[in-house]
Amino acid sequence: MKTIDVCLSPELMHLYEVKGKSVVVVDILRATSCMTSALAHGIDHIKPFAKLDDCLQAKQEGYLTAGERDGKKVEGFDMGNSPFEYMEPTLKGKKIAFTTTNGTQAIAKSEGADTIVIGSFLNLNAVVHFLRHQEKDILVVCAGWKGKVNMEDTLFAGALVDGLQNHFEPACDAPRMAQRLYADAKNDMVAYLQNSSHVKRLARLNIHKDIAFCLTPNQYNILPIMQNGFMVAQKQS
Amino acid sequence: MKTIDVCLSPELMHLYEVKGKSVVVVDILRATSCMTSALAHGIDHIKPFAKLDDCLQAKQEGYLTAGERDGKKVEGFDMGNSPFEYMEPTLKGKKIAFTTTNGTQAIAKSEGADTIVIGSFLNLNAVVHFLRHQEKDILVVCAGWKGKVNMEDTLFAGALVDGLQNHFEPACDAPRMAQRLYADAKNDMVAYLQNSSHVKRLARLNIHKDIAFCLTPNQYNILPIMQNGFMVAQKQS
Repeated sequence: MKTIDVCLSPELMHLYEVKGKSVVVVDILRATSCMTSALAHGIDHIKPFAKLDDCLQAKQEGYLTAGERDGKKVEGFDMGNSPFEYMEPTLKGKKIAFTTTNGTQAIAKSEGADTIVIGSFLNLNAVVHFLRHQEKDILVVCAGWKGKVNMEDTLFAGALVDGLQNHFEPACDAPRMAQRLYADAKNDMVAYLQNSSHVKRLARLNIHKDIAFCLTPNQYNILPIMQNGFMVAQKQS
Repeated sequence: MKTIDVCLSPELMHLYEVKGKSVVVVDILRATSCMTSALAHGIDHIKPFAKLDDCLQAKQEGYLTAGERDGKKVEGFDMGNSPFEYMEPTLKGKKIAFTTTNGTQAIAKSEGADTIVIGSFLNLNAVVHFLRHQEKDILVVCAGWKGKVNMEDTLFAGALVDGLQNHFEPACDAPRMAQRLYADAKNDMVAYLQNSSHVKRLARLNIHKDIAFCLTPNQYNILPIMQNGFMVAQKQS
């Protein structure tokens, strides 16, 4: 049986092999939730940047600039890190240069994988469906918060382990821990996360609506997938 | 309120400050369980070594050599990594040089902390009692397995967070996750850990008895504490 593993923080990536694997990058609050929303609403493609300056440069190539540092929109950027900003019909067909504190760094560290896809609760079933039909070991990369593990990304990793349990077995304890926590949380994730570090951080920025939305499974049936450095939507059949 | 934090792997230690803190090093299967047993049974002191060669050198200073690599006793060492090896009355008053795959590395990385103590389920209440009366933030350092997180060390971290919850608040998500997992596991930890990576690894070495013992809370009322590079027993009142 193929395996599923979970890297709980990008700071642990040197312990994991990505070559030959399907990698799922997760940053529930809010990078990968935004990316999923954007592609679901007709954005042509997203180019992720680990560095802020590189992201800003992309403006000259006709990109809209988007993302955050420390949970706040970057000055001079066109968009921040709320999924609702990516739903405007006027954005259809546009291309976005995206950088965030944790999410885009995790994508950068996943380079070399066979496939890199983006996961969020918003497209949970689409991710499960895609991975199930790949004949490859899976590595879920949690973006965490500045190197530390976080609850929401771990819960999503647990949701994937759970959804794939008949087809992929846990490679070590991290996927087992994630699955246990997800089982504990899944009936009311908003309540479960109420005391988590990042939810507290975001609550100070008054974005309860974002949090509730990012924790709502299966809003979109699309799969954001990296192709030649660009993230595009691969529609699910 | 003072805080309690959990570093789930020694590979994440660069993200945590140890200065001014009480640090608890945890390697349930089996380094810190052995150390606790040894000191409870009258060993004079333990000198932990990160490197195998340094540990072997200590023989010339009259030390018994002890520990493991990859779960197996080191050739030429006096003792391995089973707590039952440390209970012989003949060992009373002796001194031990100790090195293990993960546990002694975690101790080395905790250097600079205000206090370093050793935790195991065997002396859970003694550790809780000691920490409760310190006026310092706490960092629990899980030894893990070769850099990866593991279930048993995380569960013990959760037991500490749980036992100290009225006096210390979680510093971030890792202690919350550990506490949730402990709540889920505590009624039958042996069963809960049955599928964990290290228990599977040890089961191949036929040491079910060790595992069951290492998961039994409060066998000893002692606190192993580092003093000038040596680990000694501080009896609890």
